[in-house]
Amino acid sequence: MGRKIFSACNACQNLNRLSKTFEDKKFHLKNLIQDKDRLENFSLKLEGFFYDFSKQRVDDTLLNELFDLARETRAKESFSKMVSGKIVNVTENRAALHTAARDFTHDSIVLDDLDVISEIKRVNKQIDSFSKKVHDNDLKGSTGKSFTDAVVIGIGGSYLGCEFVYTALKHSIDPVINLHFLPNVDIDNFGQVIKGIDPETCLWIVISKSYTTTETMANLNQALLFLKNNHLDPLNHLVTITAKDSPGDDSSNSGLGAFHLFDFIGGRYSVTSAVGGLPLSLAFGFDVFTRFLKGCHDMDLHALNAPEEKNIPLTAALISIWNSNFLHYPAQAIIPYCSALSKLAPHVQQLYMESLGKGVTSDGKMTDHQTGVIVFGEPGTNAQHSFFQFAHQGSPFPIEFVGVVKPVYNKDQAKLEGVYNHQELWANMIAQAQALAIGKDDDNKAKYFTGNRPSSTLLINELTPESMGLLLAFYEAKTIYEGFILGVNPFDQFGVELGKVLASDIRDQIRKKNDDETTDFNSLDPATKFYLDTLFKGSL
Amino acid sequence: MGRKIFSACNACQNLNRLSKTFEDKKFHLKNLIQDKDRLENFSLKLEGFFYDFSKQRVDDTLLNELFDLARETRAKESFSKMVSGKIVNVTENRAALHTAARDFTHDSIVLDDLDVISEIKRVNKQIDSFSKKVHDNDLKGSTGKSFTDAVVIGIGGSYLGCEFVYTALKHSIDPVINLHFLPNVDIDNFGQVIKGIDPETCLWIVISKSYTTTETMANLNQALLFLKNNHLDPLNHLVTITAKDSPGDDSSNSGLGAFHLFDFIGGRYSVTSAVGGLPLSLAFGFDVFTRFLKGCHDMDLHALNAPEEKNIPLTAALISIWNSNFLHYPAQAIIPYCSALSKLAPHVQQLYMESLGKGVTSDGKMTDHQTGVIVFGEPGTNAQHSFFQFAHQGSPFPIEFVGVVKPVYNKDQAKLEGVYNHQELWANMIAQAQALAIGKDDDNKAKYFTGNRPSSTLLINELTPESMGLLLAFYEAKTIYEGFILGVNPFDQFGVELGKVLASDIRDQIRKKNDDETTDFNSLDPATKFYLDTLFKGSL
Repeated sequence: MGRKIFSACNACQNLNRLSKTFEDKKFHLKNLIQDKDRLENFSLKLEGFFYDFSKQRVDDTLLNELFDLARETRAKESFSKMVSGKIVNVTENRAALHTAARDFTHDSIVLDDLDVISEIKRVNKQIDSFSKKVHDNDLKGSTGKSFTDAVVIGIGGSYLGCEFVYTALKHSIDPVINLHFLPNVDIDNFGQVIKGIDPETCLWIVISKSYTTTETMANLNQALLFLKNNHLDPLNHLVTITAKDSPGDDSSNSGLGAFHLFDFIGGRYSVTSAVGGLPLSLAFGFDVFTRFLKGCHDMDLHALNAPEEKNIPLTAALISIWNSNFLHYPAQAIIPYCSALSKLAPHVQQLYMESLGKGVTSDGKMTDHQTGVIVFGEPGTNAQHSFFQFAHQGSPFPIEFVGVVKPVYNKDQAKLEGVYNHQELWANMIAQAQALAIGKDDDNKAKYFTGNRPSSTLLINELTPESMGLLLAFYEAKTIYEGFILGVNPFDQFGVELGKVLASDIRDQIRKKNDDETTDFNSLDPATKFYLDTLFKGSL
Repeated sequence: MGRKIFSACNACQNLNRLSKTFEDKKFHLKNLIQDKDRLENFSLKLEGFFYDFSKQRVDDTLLNELFDLARETRAKESFSKMVSGKIVNVTENRAALHTAARDFTHDSIVLDDLDVISEIKRVNKQIDSFSKKVHDNDLKGSTGKSFTDAVVIGIGGSYLGCEFVYTALKHSIDPVINLHFLPNVDIDNFGQVIKGIDPETCLWIVISKSYTTTETMANLNQALLFLKNNHLDPLNHLVTITAKDSPGDDSSNSGLGAFHLFDFIGGRYSVTSAVGGLPLSLAFGFDVFTRFLKGCHDMDLHALNAPEEKNIPLTAALISIWNSNFLHYPAQAIIPYCSALSKLAPHVQQLYMESLGKGVTSDGKMTDHQTGVIVFGEPGTNAQHSFFQFAHQGSPFPIEFVGVVKPVYNKDQAKLEGVYNHQELWANMIAQAQALAIGKDDDNKAKYFTGNRPSSTLLINELTPESMGLLLAFYEAKTIYEGFILGVNPFDQFGVELGKVLASDIRDQIRKKNDDETTDFNSLDPATKFYLDTLFKGSL
């Protein structure tokens, strides 16, 4: 028997029915959390990782239905297929093997005559060797100076995950090479980046699987012009991370080296490939990158092997589906009580929204259910002074708090009224989840809080490479499980194509005008004509 | 006759009716935008500012109803009251006079015997003089070195707006003093900030109206300890921005000076007060800050004086209400096609969500309508490679594009296939709005786009102080108009209080344990006990 369509599942019918009962007062969170065993029964643990869903709007009956839904849709079977290299990206007829990029268990995974594991080992060995040479000053810029900085040219999945990990780890580990990110085709992104570097000591890392991504190629051209104007040899200041045999893999383009990407790892799942591997190894050393991979692998093994009821990413996926499809929350916030995790939400925003923002099921039918929600977030306590007014008294949305048990900073610390800053941070994190859940009655309606607003809390021990791996792989597995259960393909992104096609038409018009300034835009629709006229005129 | 309650307005009944007709195919955006006069009729202009709402799901009939709604709710009258100093923050019995902070028209606005204009002039003169002294090296650190950096200690409205303007302007103007922001009580926020400064050349700017904000006081204590450990005199390295007679206004605490804040300007509307004035003047000079104020004032005058049909922020507010309350979109994205505006969305997220995320009307009744939506955003084209898959094929939400006609960077520029980077950026911005509106049929449902997804586009000429003023004041006025029309108070934030109260209880428990390590948490609920035990143990 194949997997069932989401909305046809028995569990879905039951969940629909249960969602009505959850409107009853006895299911208000302030009542649910009275149970002394609530935390014990509604939390899961893995070495170095804790997931508390005791303040989600669930009870035992409901959870059982959710796990039934996972079984009916054969979620774990799909995940297992994915890990073993089966075609799970059905619309593009590809495997999805990001887990192989940190697989320390298998000696070989064969895909179309290619041994994926040995290919990944080959690239990682190359990363190890290259980053050591840079750190040991065996590889230098064209004027003989050591590299101090690297600019990552890449957009979307080619930088968001790497930026998240880099931003987090540089709190605890001083980078050998400072990373800068140049995703945007905006020339002012370029202008700002070059203010922060010395061209003689800067390496440019160009990331594009096809080596045709418009933004990345445009920024590469700009970088090449910049190097030339600074009388530097581009080939001594550039590496590429790209598919085998792409234009970037050609020795005339690849500079100090080309590091291969593979079809079986999609952009938003590529942090543990060379996309993250090379920049992070340059910044912190290949050993740190390896520790990060081990953290990912631990979570992968858990996601693959733990039974439904003990499986953290699967449980998180089910709760997310409960919140979106049955309680009808349109969004979810991720609030790390940790400044270093400021780029976690932007990374997960891409990972999750690009994976699940779909209108079609894996078998090509228009969906009749919600397929993911809006994800956004800022660090707490900052967010408390920003949009938490809305979270407490506006339209409700579930929140995922992320806490780090131990801070990095360990020098002299001041107390305010007997409490250290890190303790104050935690007092707030705990209190916010409480306040959202229990609410507060007040005759003055301006001071009345409905409560019954769901949240989860994730904890990690410290800002280590391993714990960043756990976090990254948790969100990957959660997203994928959600896709499998909802019956949508979490690995394709056809929704980005139409904009590209239309941009190409407009680009043709611009090019014509650049080539011949007498060209006008009169044949275009009035809006496009107005925008292009304004652009060429240079003012409103 | 007083103002009408939102849901009781005649216009609301009509809008409800019209919203049903808008499900008809003839109102699909791909049809609406066929009209040659569409852009002309559905756009508004102010010197240096353009607002295109031709790709919103509106027509003439609908717009007329929306303007009727504005008249029925007497929105312009409320705005006018606000500007003249009437009590519009009714729950806190206060005026809301942020517009006075940049009022170059009136010589005096009297509020409770206080001449607001002359008070503001006094503080601005003090800012002018102080920043000049720092720039001219007449004011130096305690070891005789000139200041090069300033750390802004302040959270929420005490930094988000300033961060937005600083981040934008430093693309076009090199800062004399580099700003760093320390909002979060997270000790690692502090640890990261001090990595980027030299203590001898750093000034600390402490911003808190009451001078009791927990995060700010905790960070101040940490800064004082840091200065002491570096053998520097705190009083030579610190200024305060605070209310008259607050503890921060005391000469024993105020260091090199205290700059006053006033009750009649709330945190999220305070960028044009000393909150933004001092840091921005230190960074760029008081003349730049003044130019920024002039941009705000231009928008304020327009928001106050332009008739409904020509009023940009009012029209934008009405469209926002149409989208949230009648078309039921739960969120709105702000996508500046400009890297320099990367902090615009976080600022507006606070401004808008804290102002409108309310469950109660200004006259104390629970609301029966949507009062604002979730706001989030990242710069384009980055966002295209992040969550735009969701925007095109997932659950729809309106998008506000922001374009800048002329980039800052004006050195040698490369072309990719005959097109400059800034042109490529615009080609994408134009194409995304088109793609969202028109969609695309395809038998392969994975490649099918529903279209009919609304967007607006704002344009400014350049990243100048004046245009940042226009943008800032536009979003302020839009938010306020939306609050006035919806009948909620956009100036209070009682929703943040409950979390503070609960945090205080937890803080007491922590303090007891700090004072006496034999204290246990057994009397607390199991969840709070678990979190505090984990915190004190230092690992999971």
